[in-house]
Amino acid sequence: MFEKVAIIGPGLIGGSMGLGLRSRGLAQTVVGIGRRRESLDKALEIGAIDTASLDPKTGVQDADLVVLATPISTFADLTAQVADSLRAGALFTDVASTKVEVVEVISSALHSRPDVSYIPTHPMAGSEQRGPEAAKADLFAGAICIVTPLTDTFPESKSCIAGMWRALGAKVVSMTPQAHDRAVARISHMPHLAAAALMAVMDEADARLCGKGLLDTTRVASGSPSIWTDICRANREHIRASVTEYIGLLQKMVDALDNGNMARLNEILETAKSKRDRLARDRQVVEPPREQ
Amino acid sequence: MFEKVAIIGPGLIGGSMGLGLRSRGLAQTVVGIGRRRESLDKALEIGAIDTASLDPKTGVQDADLVVLATPISTFADLTAQVADSLRAGALFTDVASTKVEVVEVISSALHSRPDVSYIPTHPMAGSEQRGPEAAKADLFAGAICIVTPLTDTFPESKSCIAGMWRALGAKVVSMTPQAHDRAVARISHMPHLAAAALMAVMDEADARLCGKGLLDTTRVASGSPSIWTDICRANREHIRASVTEYIGLLQKMVDALDNGNMARLNEILETAKSKRDRLARDRQVVEPPREQ
Repeated sequence: MFEKVAIIGPGLIGGSMGLGLRSRGLAQTVVGIGRRRESLDKALEIGAIDTASLDPKTGVQDADLVVLATPISTFADLTAQVADSLRAGALFTDVASTKVEVVEVISSALHSRPDVSYIPTHPMAGSEQRGPEAAKADLFAGAICIVTPLTDTFPESKSCIAGMWRALGAKVVSMTPQAHDRAVARISHMPHLAAAALMAVMDEADARLCGKGLLDTTRVASGSPSIWTDICRANREHIRASVTEYIGLLQKMVDALDNGNMARLNEILETAKSKRDRLARDRQVVEPPREQ
Repeated sequence: MFEKVAIIGPGLIGGSMGLGLRSRGLAQTVVGIGRRRESLDKALEIGAIDTASLDPKTGVQDADLVVLATPISTFADLTAQVADSLRAGALFTDVASTKVEVVEVISSALHSRPDVSYIPTHPMAGSEQRGPEAAKADLFAGAICIVTPLTDTFPESKSCIAGMWRALGAKVVSMTPQAHDRAVARISHMPHLAAAALMAVMDEADARLCGKGLLDTTRVASGSPSIWTDICRANREHIRASVTEYIGLLQKMVDALDNGNMARLNEILETAKSKRDRLARDRQVVEPPREQ
């Protein structure tokens, strides 16, 4: 599928892409580009990349696919650094969790390279962990990958990127960057803040009494604060609107408790259960086998 | 340990107790008491109970331990029904998620039986599932079980109940019913409402794009609305205070987004991560093995 893939930032997402591309024979060579030698060594060790480079300019040379998988705040600088070294006709993609601002930043940095095709993507997979240590060849199996083609994206470029994600096991959904940012604020960014706020208000002595429920509800709060601060800055307006809507519903719950209106509270819990049950069915959540 | 244990409501919790007691030889006979024949048949089928009874009065006769594992709203009636049939010297326990009101209700229903020893407990284990189908012999392994002895509880009765929970794999923590209700509002009841509110505001079309994060964050929202409405009614004041505190922190996040004060947001996310990481370490969350 690809002769040479350059992954800038072979961490959890980039490293999993490298593992998946290599184990499925989708790339002849995968080069990992990073700032820290140890992290690249780890990516080499687990087989996520074939070769490593500390120099983005050299690393991207001759690559037919370049993947930007570093934190959003590095995008402008890294893309500007590599722009002149990209091969003519190369595909350029990013895997960031926000799109509108990212598209502006990358498109602008690639302005001098109309011969390079940029297609933004966002695989809805990951974990609270970071780095190549956490990478898995099947991280994207069964996950949704959102592709947000631009008005000038060639259909062949879009097909190629979509095909790669499908080959990695993802289901590809296409939408505009604007629609992406609004939807993802509601299903990922706002819920992340909700989980983080739960932990942030938590009394630690109380928390040690908790059951598995709290551990699951707050799992994502162990994610990287700097990565999430980046995301929140880049998608501020939608996240703000979504958290405000969430606060509104929580306040309705408090009002129901205040008024002893348990029927109203039960109604909200019924709505929540119906939606969660449908979602779990739709996403085919496999419950762990029953041990006895 | 026990000759005859009567479990009123052998569902997820009661059924798991039955399975655990029987598989460890801690009870010679376990009788399951319920309202629905099918549910009792299921409990018999999975080996959670030895015999079944649709009549609470008959079922509890001669039991040296009676476990009340039905929804809170049934406690007054069921305890009153069985009070006269309890064996002299029997231990009586409940496994409800709230304690102050439950203790009042059960103590009052057992008023005529000073020869029966009542010790409230709350195993911090369960799942969003219900019924004996979801029961597991090791449901309580590694879980905390909170015991809230009353001022007149005999030390031997407390030791006996604590010993049973330890034998089922739980770590026993003792506190007053008041301290229990305050702590559990913060670590279980409020987080449950937070997860349910997340699903209740969710747009279902958006949600279908979600990653594993949202499924984990909202897992508990699939729990039974009627059971949780009962819990919220019984522990209204503490839950109200805790949700209000949570809303306060979410509002601080919105303010930080409004003011572009990303340093403040980052600070909250750092606090959340530190607390979540410490909690996961403390509760020894075993991450699933890395598949490649």
